[in-house]
Amino acid sequence: MRRLHVLYRPLKLLFPGGRAKPWGRLASCRWASFTTDTTLPDVNSFVARSKTCGELRSAHIGQEVTLCGWIQYKRHEQFVVLRDFQGLTQILIPQVEVSAIENCFCSFLMQTGDIEVKAETAEVLNYCKKLPFEIKDFTKKTEALRMQYRYLDIRSIQMQYNLRLRSQVVMRMREYLCNCYDFVDVETPTLFKKTPGGAKEFVVPSREAGKFYSLPQSPQQFKQLLMVGGLDRYFQVARCYRDEGSKPDRQPEFTQIDIEMSFVDQDGILALIEGMLQYSWPKEKGLIKIPFPSITYDEALSTYGTDKPDTRFGMKIIDVSHILRNVDVAFLQNSLSEPHGTVKAICIPQGAKLQFKDLESLNELSIFFWEFGMKSPLGKFLSEEQKSELIRTVEANMEDVVLLAAGQHKKVCSALGKLRLKSAELLEAKGLLLRDPSAFHFLWVVEFPLFLPKEKNPEELEAAHHPFTAPHPLDEHLLYSDPSQVRGQHYDLVLNGNEIGGGSIRIHNAKQQRFILEKVLKEDTELLFHLLEALESGAPPHGGIALGLDRLICLLVGGSSIRDVIAFPKSFRGRDLMSNAPDYVDPQELEPYHVQVTWPLTEAKARTN
Amino acid sequence: MRRLHVLYRPLKLLFPGGRAKPWGRLASCRWASFTTDTTLPDVNSFVARSKTCGELRSAHIGQEVTLCGWIQYKRHEQFVVLRDFQGLTQILIPQVEVSAIENCFCSFLMQTGDIEVKAETAEVLNYCKKLPFEIKDFTKKTEALRMQYRYLDIRSIQMQYNLRLRSQVVMRMREYLCNCYDFVDVETPTLFKKTPGGAKEFVVPSREAGKFYSLPQSPQQFKQLLMVGGLDRYFQVARCYRDEGSKPDRQPEFTQIDIEMSFVDQDGILALIEGMLQYSWPKEKGLIKIPFPSITYDEALSTYGTDKPDTRFGMKIIDVSHILRNVDVAFLQNSLSEPHGTVKAICIPQGAKLQFKDLESLNELSIFFWEFGMKSPLGKFLSEEQKSELIRTVEANMEDVVLLAAGQHKKVCSALGKLRLKSAELLEAKGLLLRDPSAFHFLWVVEFPLFLPKEKNPEELEAAHHPFTAPHPLDEHLLYSDPSQVRGQHYDLVLNGNEIGGGSIRIHNAKQQRFILEKVLKEDTELLFHLLEALESGAPPHGGIALGLDRLICLLVGGSSIRDVIAFPKSFRGRDLMSNAPDYVDPQELEPYHVQVTWPLTEAKARTN
Repeated sequence: MRRLHVLYRPLKLLFPGGRAKPWGRLASCRWASFTTDTTLPDVNSFVARSKTCGELRSAHIGQEVTLCGWIQYKRHEQFVVLRDFQGLTQILIPQVEVSAIENCFCSFLMQTGDIEVKAETAEVLNYCKKLPFEIKDFTKKTEALRMQYRYLDIRSIQMQYNLRLRSQVVMRMREYLCNCYDFVDVETPTLFKKTPGGAKEFVVPSREAGKFYSLPQSPQQFKQLLMVGGLDRYFQVARCYRDEGSKPDRQPEFTQIDIEMSFVDQDGILALIEGMLQYSWPKEKGLIKIPFPSITYDEALSTYGTDKPDTRFGMKIIDVSHILRNVDVAFLQNSLSEPHGTVKAICIPQGAKLQFKDLESLNELSIFFWEFGMKSPLGKFLSEEQKSELIRTVEANMEDVVLLAAGQHKKVCSALGKLRLKSAELLEAKGLLLRDPSAFHFLWVVEFPLFLPKEKNPEELEAAHHPFTAPHPLDEHLLYSDPSQVRGQHYDLVLNGNEIGGGSIRIHNAKQQRFILEKVLKEDTELLFHLLEALESGAPPHGGIALGLDRLICLLVGGSSIRDVIAFPKSFRGRDLMSNAPDYVDPQELEPYHVQVTWPLTEAKARTN
Repeated sequence: MRRLHVLYRPLKLLFPGGRAKPWGRLASCRWASFTTDTTLPDVNSFVARSKTCGELRSAHIGQEVTLCGWIQYKRHEQFVVLRDFQGLTQILIPQVEVSAIENCFCSFLMQTGDIEVKAETAEVLNYCKKLPFEIKDFTKKTEALRMQYRYLDIRSIQMQYNLRLRSQVVMRMREYLCNCYDFVDVETPTLFKKTPGGAKEFVVPSREAGKFYSLPQSPQQFKQLLMVGGLDRYFQVARCYRDEGSKPDRQPEFTQIDIEMSFVDQDGILALIEGMLQYSWPKEKGLIKIPFPSITYDEALSTYGTDKPDTRFGMKIIDVSHILRNVDVAFLQNSLSEPHGTVKAICIPQGAKLQFKDLESLNELSIFFWEFGMKSPLGKFLSEEQKSELIRTVEANMEDVVLLAAGQHKKVCSALGKLRLKSAELLEAKGLLLRDPSAFHFLWVVEFPLFLPKEKNPEELEAAHHPFTAPHPLDEHLLYSDPSQVRGQHYDLVLNGNEIGGGSIRIHNAKQQRFILEKVLKEDTELLFHLLEALESGAPPHGGIALGLDRLICLLVGGSSIRDVIAFPKSFRGRDLMSNAPDYVDPQELEPYHVQVTWPLTEAKARTN
């Protein structure tokens, strides 16, 4: 490695005090840039530095530069390696400036290795106390500790990458919507009113006694009202709120890319979103092909046992009822004689690598094991012909395992769908690569049922998604006779087995909306009076979609939780571990809002003692 | 006007039922576009229409097109004028499709006047009931009615323009920050913890008894923590919350362009913002010149009597103490002998047009009237030499009025500052143009005091802006001896006399921050423990700014209130008049949050009766 000297002044440095090194190991890298023009953004304007720590090359020799950054480490008492988030630069410091910093072993690949910088002046801008741990060890620490010191965790190469990539992807989406397709970015209120059936909404007490705002779960009503208002292409990167207690990997506040259009049908929305994702997808993550494949809800359930199939791998569910119909096993016979009774199978490639106990833990319905060599207890009841037809139908090879389930269609599919995912995980844990972690498989799921039986009272119906979804045009007549059979114009976008968005064509006819709310769903329409009135005021046909931004970016960067792509997330109990929010509030501060705390009995006692 | 026929199908129409015409008068216009490339955005992709109603010209003759829109009116039983937000197009409808719509007088300037469209098929997509009023009369209605039917109000040309322009300006700001200068758009939480001294924060009860989130007034703490975290160029279009009861023209939630940078000084932030505003300023509003002029807080107070001077007109405050020092009037003598005693004047050009009673209503301190011809009672006490020196000093001409005020410096300036604005309003009411409504005068105000005496207890100090503002480098030594004399590195951006933004270089030294919080401001640092700890962990020097987006756009479009640039604003009492939020909540829904309503005595009685 050649060593060359570059003279400059003033050199600004941040020295950590004592032995602490605030920065962990970071390969020098420049974040991928997605700007539309070919010029790179200017990262050195307006600030004290004239170059970043990742920028100097032999071409700069002889120039005077100003660098700002953190001390990465000191070498041989006279070199200091300075770093920022663009990279590292070695600095030759006048002896008098060097304080006693421990020598460190250096094994970095420095892209600025062709030069080093001779400091003319150096200024210590701040000191760093001993950190609770080294940044490079951060990801090994408990998540609670990382959250408590989130401002240090953000220094990690992964968090820097995640947050910068998120910003760039969202910017590209905005360019696509605003600049390419004339969408209007409209901000809608977050202090709003309770939506019907909207449990899970945080309340915000107002200064009027007994009256509360709600923090809405989405801008659904507002975006429909904007269509009535003639803003025919709306979008918003919208903050949404949902109080789900302590569900894992949910956040009380989250962000969605919220879109609505007038005079549009389902195909229009699907094409818009495909184009947007293709346009905003980071180059380093590969190209994505459009249009995305599409599957109906019924087909998804039959083939994958779920409405959000992971299509990165096969192991599809296959109907084998016809083969086993005449097998003299009571369980099979009973299952097949039920209404919607069926026998289905999945074939696990190289499933013989799994232990019996691995699969046993999955046992929900009656499961039979089938390997070449017929180790299954079912084997003896099958004729040779039935055996070979089964093997042919499920395309089983040597070392594969076939799982069978018998029973009612939906239950069988759902059980096999779970077994399919669990088996994939088990095989991957054994080192087999089933799902390429760098692959992105998008899938539209369409033709959902419009209504579902309520879990607690299956005689009554509830909206499968929300009460504003329009019925499928072919099923409209069933609304009045057999609403449970109506398909909705709803669509979900699935990526690698995760639902990352959903939307629908909305009802724009006030009468139809009122019928569904009052007669089908038995909702109180009083809360939606303004929306019904708006639909009567010349509402255009309209539809839209919302993408879960946190989840999408999490999948994009391969994060293990959406907390990896949120700068300051809450814990799964909804706490901010850094600032200790939520926190107790002086009763006096609650007075203007006319609320008081109802202490649970045990706590109330503790407080009076 | 030539009439030409264009054949096409299918034509989609929205027919209003009966006599109602949902759309008011709107000159056909295409919204100015600010995209960086020269291609215009595609407004017809993904939707049912193939052209907008403002797009067809004689070049399109012979083409088949699909139009969607609202019926503007019907003409001579066979023509229908269809409209959307791009313009109007005349359609020749097959007789059988025409229902009995009243004839309307047409006086529109139609940019599509060269063609008309012969309908092959037409489809009625929705009906419109009789509206509470015609859209074109909307702005004449009470604001309460406009707010109740906000989705109709948004159809007005002015609201369409305001919301579309807002979206475009914000998009340009994002391009400037992200694409030109590598800023990272980071979303920060809105469910946070109370900030010290942060009255005016809405509380959100959590599921932990007695614990509340706060809706923060700004992302101040988060953006500083991001600097500690190494995200050295942050921005966010941030939703902020402030509960100010019913202050006029404030909103409980509002939006700011929030920016923070590391290794930056005041000049860097100022240049960044000037560049951003120039880059994002709509062409139709003229170019803005940068750099903006700058004035110190002291100078602003002395010259304009306020820290947010409207520099679109003169009438500056002029010190005339030296001229009146020897005039034998007890009031002047007494005032000049006070500490900081002074006599100052403003000269109102053509002030003789004002009535004595107009000015009398402004009387705060002793005011003397001075016209050429010396009608003032003060006149007789002045020598001819003093009179002409006074006239020369204030540059008074025939028909001007000079207002004098004597007393303590700050009070005199502040009073004359108010008189200056009031006089300008009075003169403009009489038809004189003092302030060009299309002019934009930006001004930086700098060198604010860091602390101010508390209003209720002037012995104690409070932060003039917020406790994180760094002291002026030249005044740092005064922190420990005479903090009230310390200037801060704070800057305000003023536009036409309105504060539209403010920011500062922050304290990055934990010791200094702790000293100011504990010793100067006597704040409880417990609430800021995490921030102080972060400053000790290698925090870089940093600074930032926040611009009030609602106010900025309101000034840009010449709105009368920020409600004119917000899609769904609250009333001055914080109510959403459309949905009737906030609203009563079932006590059962409050249970998970461990709060109950404290009914005021009168209401509690009414409720038990």
